[in-house]
Amino acid sequence: MTTNFTHFNNEGNAIMVDVNDKDITDRIAIAKGSIKVNEDVFYAIKNNTAKKGDVLAVARIAGIMAAKKTSDIIPLCHPLFITKATVDFELDETNFLINAIVQTKVSGKTGVEMEALHAVSVALLTIYDMCKALDRSMEILNIHLVHKEGGKSGIYDRKA
Amino acid sequence: MTTNFTHFNNEGNAIMVDVNDKDITDRIAIAKGSIKVNEDVFYAIKNNTAKKGDVLAVARIAGIMAAKKTSDIIPLCHPLFITKATVDFELDETNFLINAIVQTKVSGKTGVEMEALHAVSVALLTIYDMCKALDRSMEILNIHLVHKEGGKSGIYDRKA
Amino acid sequence: MTTNFTHFNNEGNAIMVDVNDKDITDRIAIAKGSIKVNEDVFYAIKNNTAKKGDVLAVARIAGIMAAKKTSDIIPLCHPLFITKATVDFELDETNFLINAIVQTKVSGKTGVEMEALHAVSVALLTIYDMCKALDRSMEILNIHLVHKEGGKSGIYDRKA
Amino acid sequence: MTTNFTHFNNEGNAIMVDVNDKDITDRIAIAKGSIKVNEDVFYAIKNNTAKKGDVLAVARIAGIMAAKKTSDIIPLCHPLFITKATVDFELDETNFLINAIVQTKVSGKTGVEMEALHAVSVALLTIYDMCKALDRSMEILNIHLVHKEGGKSGIYDRKA
Amino acid sequence: MTTNFTHFNNEGNAIMVDVNDKDITDRIAIAKGSIKVNEDVFYAIKNNTAKKGDVLAVARIAGIMAAKKTSDIIPLCHPLFITKATVDFELDETNFLINAIVQTKVSGKTGVEMEALHAVSVALLTIYDMCKALDRSMEILNIHLVHKEGGKSGIYDRKA
Amino acid sequence: MTTNFTHFNNEGNAIMVDVNDKDITDRIAIAKGSIKVNEDVFYAIKNNTAKKGDVLAVARIAGIMAAKKTSDIIPLCHPLFITKATVDFELDETNFLINAIVQTKVSGKTGVEMEALHAVSVALLTIYDMCKALDRSMEILNIHLVHKEGGKSGIYDRKA
Repeated sequence: MTTNFTHFNNEGNAIMVDVNDKDITDRIAIAKGSIKVNEDVFYAIKNNTAKKGDVLAVARIAGIMAAKKTSDIIPLCHPLFITKATVDFELDETNFLINAIVQTKVSGKTGVEMEALHAVSVALLTIYDMCKALDRSMEILNIHLVHKEGGKSGIYDRKA
Repeated sequence: MTTNFTHFNNEGNAIMVDVNDKDITDRIAIAKGSIKVNEDVFYAIKNNTAKKGDVLAVARIAGIMAAKKTSDIIPLCHPLFITKATVDFELDETNFLINAIVQTKVSGKTGVEMEALHAVSVALLTIYDMCKALDRSMEILNIHLVHKEGGKSGIYDRKA
Repeated sequence: MTTNFTHFNNEGNAIMVDVNDKDITDRIAIAKGSIKVNEDVFYAIKNNTAKKGDVLAVARIAGIMAAKKTSDIIPLCHPLFITKATVDFELDETNFLINAIVQTKVSGKTGVEMEALHAVSVALLTIYDMCKALDRSMEILNIHLVHKEGGKSGIYDRKA
Repeated sequence: MTTNFTHFNNEGNAIMVDVNDKDITDRIAIAKGSIKVNEDVFYAIKNNTAKKGDVLAVARIAGIMAAKKTSDIIPLCHPLFITKATVDFELDETNFLINAIVQTKVSGKTGVEMEALHAVSVALLTIYDMCKALDRSMEILNIHLVHKEGGKSGIYDRKA
Repeated sequence: MTTNFTHFNNEGNAIMVDVNDKDITDRIAIAKGSIKVNEDVFYAIKNNTAKKGDVLAVARIAGIMAAKKTSDIIPLCHPLFITKATVDFELDETNFLINAIVQTKVSGKTGVEMEALHAVSVALLTIYDMCKALDRSMEILNIHLVHKEGGKSGIYDRKA
Repeated sequence: MTTNFTHFNNEGNAIMVDVNDKDITDRIAIAKGSIKVNEDVFYAIKNNTAKKGDVLAVARIAGIMAAKKTSDIIPLCHPLFITKATVDFELDETNFLINAIVQTKVSGKTGVEMEALHAVSVALLTIYDMCKALDRSMEILNIHLVHKEGGKSGIYDRKA
């Protein structure tokens, strides 16, 4: 039985869900993810932040642009004209992790969590791309939704 | 000092690296990643595989199409006309993980690992999108390069 | 005289028509089209529907994604954030035809018939692509608007 | 059994076919299709050809640009850097048909028939878009491959 | 200090500005720019305007399509569904200049000046592309905003 | 007469020129352009270069990404897989000009001057976008080809 999936109709065919009758409300999503790098890559990134050679500045732009292209890339996502996108990074020196945190907003009929998750994923892939000549064993991990609000389903906060 | 990054020049400015003088060789990349789902989502996906309502069939198409768009999304990636892209899934019933494995190929001047990694990430995000009405706490993890061959740097195999 | 074309101004220059003052109303379009295949292709498609190797499942995703890209492809089409897109198929065993039927919806200032027609056309081209190694003489035919509602021009139903 | 489809592997999963080992050869495709219009639309188009208000000039540009985007739109199509695209029109005054004929060329590992067919389809949809305020009952028909050459499968000519 | 840039936050990180709480108002922008050509190119363009071989008709379509893609190309631009785009040309025979004038409109939360400026720039680049076999020394110049209205900042008119 | 335009055929119809029989050679293009800003904007940009809030770092990424999308935006441009793209800036303190200089490379059948010119134009538009809240009267000027080599037409150097 496939009826528990909203993205399939009763015959089991993939659909772009009908959101036409939903209310236009303010919707926010926050997503987060990390890339695990080795010590050399970590300090190469850290020491150039806010300077020339700033890997994170490039990854930030990539993430923001990706947020705008989400419905081009994720087949059943609705097109949305997002009203805000920010990409922040945290450097976790204990674990040699770079964390990306994305916030997206829209005033629309459907949520922006895919936009936030997509932007996280592209920001992290961009870090991989720019550092891969130094180390190919980097790993992207822990991409998840942190928070969501707006729309009928209300507020979601991921448990710690 | 930024000279250890290939994607910045000596002044620390981001560049698309000059690959013009590299040889055209056959290049292959394999990347892998997972999405951790809950038990309900796991069996909803598993029981509809190869049937109507097949989440993985949609995610596979998304991944293949994403492989072709990598240079649109990752800022400093070279455009490539890839000659092969496959997306496979494994269902890990012990850990409720869906694993995506992507292989890409090109006969070109630069490698296809970003194409494989991007396709993995988009295939997993598509699973998230299609199942998010059932569970928002899913997590994407372990996106990494498994294997790479072709070009001057030779064969790379990730250590187990 | 060119003034009977809405997409040219009085000097005969192509324009994107000004729809700024139109009302936002719910708009629906249904379009349909067919691909004529030979007997072998017909049964190859039919026997794999809702199984592994499902050509129509791929064509459906292609059609839905194409609906979202209509304004990128059709020069004078307005960008729209469609709220629904469905692609259905009928198998006409008498004539070896695969029929694609697309429904699109928007709450906006202009109609979604081009989105529906574009999705039909791309769904059928995808079937062609996937079956062309079996038969190159397939033909796409009868792409037309079936129904349209919303906006000042009201309801349109194609005569049988 | 799905093995007769080249776009599915042995397990029935959709793939972008591996063309890496194919020879780079000159490949040409010609495709054709028509749009059936009413008498008013036919003469509105005909009388403005090669003048201000030229619907076919816009449709031609749309077709050429679409040829370049084929692999973005058709899921399993390989990216190609086509070396030529032309879009011609014939006005069939007896049947009130506008015929679009597209020729595409590439020097590559796989053929350009999807590029030609996609360009035909977009050129005809553009005519529909520009004339739909005059008549919504127009119909797109007879989209087919006329000729193909290059590559292992040799020359294909559609029987009259 | 970077706080005078709206496109950076207090830490100096690039952001897509939050426009979620702005009012939806009618917004218009007019932008203009020129390409300086030599005498031969000027008359080749002028003598074919409104005829076969009309360079400006192609440039017009390019400009309109570019207006729709602005947020894909300009990193921190908000996606917008513009409601109007027109591209006009003036031929300045004294100075051998082709002037492009673009008007864009939206009913939205943020302005359309980047859409107008982007369309001007692409229309002029298209003229360059189509004439470059005749003369490579053409120069694009004087791209600027002429007029803007709508939104909190009110009406802007460039001083002569 | 339109035969002096390479982008029209003998009947005056726009075409993507056939480059199939051209040799694959190394091709380079350098293009340049400027944006004239006021004193406040000039120093706001200058003082944040190579720091947080670096407008030019964002414009550089925009330019590189635009180089890759040239054939999507310029209607009759051939798709190319460029092998290099760099975007540099000069700050002309005497005239309050920011100059953008782009170099592109390809090993292909046709040149990369449109890619270089397009990247210049998008880098400058991005500066405009990021500074427009400070000053709307900025002007983009002097976009031109500086140098070109490779292919049958040989070396071109713009006269000073």
